Formats: sequence, C-alpha cells, structure tokens
Amino acid sequence: MKHAPLVESLIEAFTCLPGVGPRSAQRMAYALLERGREDGRQLAGALTAAMDGVRHCQRCRNYAEHDLCPICQDPRRDAGLVCIVASPADVLALEQSGEYRGHYFVLMGQLSPLDGIGPRELGLDVLEQRLNEGQIQELILATGTTVEGEATAHYVLDLAREAGVSVSRIAQGVPMGGDLEFVDGATLAQALRGRRPFST
Amino acid sequence: MKHAPLVESLIEAFTCLPGVGPRSAQRMAYALLERGREDGRQLAGALTAAMDGVRHCQRCRNYAEHDLCPICQDPRRDAGLVCIVASPADVLALEQSGEYRGHYFVLMGQLSPLDGIGPRELGLDVLEQRLNEGQIQELILATGTTVEGEATAHYVLDLAREAGVSVSRIAQGVPMGGDLEFVDGATLAQALRGRRPFST
Repeated sequence: MKHAPLVESLIEAFTCLPGVGPRSAQRMAYALLERGREDGRQLAGALTAAMDGVRHCQRCRNYAEHDLCPICQDPRRDAGLVCIVASPADVLALEQSGEYRGHYFVLMGQLSPLDGIGPRELGLDVLEQRLNEGQIQELILATGTTVEGEATAHYVLDLAREAGVSVSRIAQGVPMGGDLEFVDGATLAQALRGRRPFST
Repeated sequence: MKHAPLVESLIEAFTCLPGVGPRSAQRMAYALLERGREDGRQLAGALTAAMDGVRHCQRCRNYAEHDLCPICQDPRRDAGLVCIVASPADVLALEQSGEYRGHYFVLMGQLSPLDGIGPRELGLDVLEQRLNEGQIQELILATGTTVEGEATAHYVLDLAREAGVSVSRIAQGVPMGGDLEFVDGATLAQALRGRRPFST
C-alpha cells in the first residue's frame, strides 16, 4: 500500500478523465488535498448534479436540464433554420462565432455502420419527423469533413429532399479532415455566410 | 447562456484542477456526459470521501485516514531511521525505489519566510520533540536541491545536531534544481545507498 486507500481511490477515479494518466491523476489528487479541499467538494457536487441532472433536449438532442435546451426555448431564435452538427462542442463553437441565430440538431455522433451507429442512433428518425412537420425552411449541414461526416451529410440531404426542405452547407474555412470544434469563430462566421446549395 | 447551467458549473469546477484550462475542462465534462456517467458518479464519490476523510498522520504528517498512516503503522519498518521529505509525492517516489525501509517525516512544504512558511508550518517543532525522545538514530535529508530545499535541510541539520542525532543526505543522482518527485526509482535507490554525513 503506497497511498492511504482514500487517496488511492481518488487517483484511480481521476484516470477516467480524457488525457489524464496515473501521473496527472496523482498531481490532481495531491493538489486538491493540499490546498483545494473546498474546490474538491465543489467539483464533487457539480459532478453529481450534472451526471444525474443533464439529459438531452427533446427537440435538438443537445444537453439540457429540462425538456428543452436554452436555445430551443429562446423565442428570439429563427426556428425555420436548423443547423445539423455532430456534437454539443460543435454547437458551442458555432455559438461563439456570433453569426448564427437559428436552431440546431445535434446528432451526438456520425454515421458509422461498422461501430453500430446508424440513423436511429443519431436521432435521424426524429429529424425526419420534424422536417415533415413543415416548420423548417432550411437545413444547414455543419457535420465534419471526414468520411463519416460526408456520409452523414448525404443521408441528411436525402431526408431533406424527400421533405422538400432546402439544404445548404457551411463552406469556406472548414479545413479538410478537421474537427469542427477546433475551428476559430471568425472562420466559422465566414463559413456560415458563404454557405451554398448542397449537391451530390 | 451557451451551455445548460449544470454543464457550465461542471466545466467551471474542472478548471480548479492543475493543468486544466477551459478547453480541457469542456472536453472532460462532455466525455463524462456522453459516455461516462457512472465514472463521473464514482469520481464524485471518491472526491467527497477523500476531501472529508483524508487528514495528516500524527507522526509523520503524510496523508492518512486514521491517526497514523500505513507506513507509521507498519511494525516491519525501522523506526530508528527517518527520512525528511517535502511532500507526499516524494514519499511515493522513494517508496517506488524499493530501497527504503525506514520511516518518513513529511514537511508539506519547504522553508520560505517570504511566503509565511516558517518552521512551525512545516511541523519542525513536532520533529524536534521526536528527535529529543531518543528513538531516532539517523535522519536522512531528502529535501530538494533548490534554495528553499537547502535552507530547510540546514534548519533540520541544526535541530538534529542539538539532539545529538546523526544526519545524512541522499547523494548521487538528484539533479540540481530538480524536484524529487520526478526522479526515477533507480536513481533514487542509488542516492539512498550513496548517502553521506551532512556538513555545512
């Protein structure tokens, strides 16, 4: 036994975080024990509250505490415009560009049949239903430019065509093969302005 | 409002950890929400248990859950030999060298009068008392080789001399200006074997 058991469990638990190995986990545990016990208790509280309280918006699938997320609840946003993104981090990146005032639909992934991720897992049946309800005027595709992102974009394009909804795609500035969440706000703003009709 | 408030609080709380900025904090929160809610709950539990339950060993000041830490409770360890280190991470590094079978005294810092860290803050009054009790045969100084480490070592040397306890210092392999916790076990083992009498 190298550590007290409670310290050992804490170090072990920290390694569940992305990018945290045994060494960083130890540093985190010691830092909190040494001079941040109140911070540690706050982190524990925030974790419990979020793990138990955060669910998905019934409309756009983004993280939400109630039936609808803050964006879907906002009456000032244009409900006729829906931007399709892969993850909540992408919503954040687009919001930070300050350019977009429409709604989102968050796939929480991308089509990847080999990993068992099909249209249902991405909520595309829900999207199809919304497209057929007639409120949506335009879909903006903002999935990544990877192979999975392209496949997903084409699948959504087909859904929108069947429902007679026009589809555009964010254009300039998204680097090929890059993840959307790492693109800067100015580039994303330009990409939104430069969107053009999507064709195969 | 960019995130749901619970997500926002969680991201904010993660930034209290060393080496975690807003971007990593967001990645951690999203990773747990997306595919690690059980891990997140476990981390919360481990945090609460450690923040409330971990205190300091009454004998060596290392982290402990009871009055004494596992090392001070172990009857197979040589209570006549006490190694002085700055932090619990240093104890761990020395334990991993597999060379040491004595006890420790953990200063939880180093002398730094400008930051208000004097002998009392490092528990050196407690060490003085233990030195005068007569059980300790030899002190091994394993504080760092920084200016503060040197000052601390000299202060402890004076205490030990007054009590008539012999003092040695770990020798080879500790890089100048380096922190003990980043030294590998083999180097620390050699440093322990190569210890020699401490003189000013």
